[in-house]
Amino acid sequence: MPELDWIKGFALKMGEGTEEIPWTERYLSRMKNMYADGDACREILEKQDPLIYRFHELGAPEEDGVLSFGITELMPGKVGNEYYMTKGHFHKKLMTSEIYLCLSGSGMLMLENMEGDWKVIPMKEMEAVYVPAGYAHRSINTGNEVLRMFFVYGADAGHDYNTIETKGFRHLVTEQDKETAVIENPAWQAASE
Amino acid sequence: MPELDWIKGFALKMGEGTEEIPWTERYLSRMKNMYADGDACREILEKQDPLIYRFHELGAPEEDGVLSFGITELMPGKVGNEYYMTKGHFHKKLMTSEIYLCLSGSGMLMLENMEGDWKVIPMKEMEAVYVPAGYAHRSINTGNEVLRMFFVYGADAGHDYNTIETKGFRHLVTEQDKETAVIENPAWQAASE
Repeated sequence: MPELDWIKGFALKMGEGTEEIPWTERYLSRMKNMYADGDACREILEKQDPLIYRFHELGAPEEDGVLSFGITELMPGKVGNEYYMTKGHFHKKLMTSEIYLCLSGSGMLMLENMEGDWKVIPMKEMEAVYVPAGYAHRSINTGNEVLRMFFVYGADAGHDYNTIETKGFRHLVTEQDKETAVIENPAWQAASE
Repeated sequence: MPELDWIKGFALKMGEGTEEIPWTERYLSRMKNMYADGDACREILEKQDPLIYRFHELGAPEEDGVLSFGITELMPGKVGNEYYMTKGHFHKKLMTSEIYLCLSGSGMLMLENMEGDWKVIPMKEMEAVYVPAGYAHRSINTGNEVLRMFFVYGADAGHDYNTIETKGFRHLVTEQDKETAVIENPAWQAASE
C-alpha cells in the first residue's frame, strides 16, 4: 500500500505549500488514566513510554461547509489485556458525522452517543465506517500491525475530548483467551455513580 | 486492492441494512454534448453506447453536519483525443468543499471556480485531493485502467450539474502526440460570448 501523498491536498489548499504536515503524537503517559488496568499501565511506564498513536490532518479553516481530512496511525499493542486505542472524542458541534476509511491493518471503531446507544464496528482494509452525528468514536487496534485510517469530518465540528477522558466509554475492547472480547467498563460505572 | 465494503457504512447508517447500494451509470449518450469532438462522439454512438462512469454513495440525509461518501469508477477511453471524464459539478450550496482519495488508476481532477480560477491536479493511487469551497470539479481518466475514487462531501451540499452542462469547463484534458495536454476549451468561449 503506497503512502498517502499529503502534498497534493496541502499544495492545493495553501496554493504552493509543499511541506509535509507534522504528526501529533500520543504517548502512553498522556493517556495513562484511560486504560482499565492501572497496574499494567504503571509497569509499562516504569520501563518506557510507548507511542500509542499519531495523526496529522489538513489544516482547513474551521468554517461551515469546509471539510478537514487526515490520517491516524494506531500502533499494535496492549495495556494489560486492553488493546491500544485512541483517546476518542465527541464533536463539540455534537450533531456532525465523520467518515473513516481503513487503509491498512485491522481493528474496531467504538461508537457511543450521550444516551448510551453504542456499537462496535470492525475495521478492515478498504472498508469505510460511518460515524453518525452525535456519536463519540474511538479506534482500537486489535491486530498485529499498524492500523492506518483516513478520516474526513466537517472542519467546524470541533473536538470534545474531555467527556471521554472523564468518564470513558461504556465498553472496553480486550483480549481474553487470545480472542477479542468487548466487555463492560467498570470505571465508567463508577464515574457515573 | 480489495473492494471497498459498503455494507459496513450502510449497515450502521440504516441500522440493519445489508444490501449493496446500486450504481448510477452514465453512458456516453447522456453526455454527448459535453465532449469537444462532436463527430468523434457520433461515430462512437453509431456503433455502441459505452459506459463512461458509474458511482454510488451512502444515502445520508441532506442535513447540516452530516457527511455523504461514495465511490466513483471512471472508465479508461477517449472521445476523439479527449479522455473519458465525469460530468463535473458545482455544489448548490456553493461554498462547500469535497475530498477525493484515489483508490486505483490515475487521472486528473479539474477544478474551476465561478471567477475562472482553475487548476488541474494529478490523481494517483492513495493520493488525496482537496476540492476547495466554491470550485466545480471533474475527474478525468488519463490512464489505461479504471480510475476509482473515494469521495466525501457535506450531505446538504447538493449538486449543480447545469452550469457545467451549459458552458463546460474552461479547459479540456486531451491526448496530443501520446502525451496528456491541457488545452483551452473553444466551446466554453463560444457559450460565453
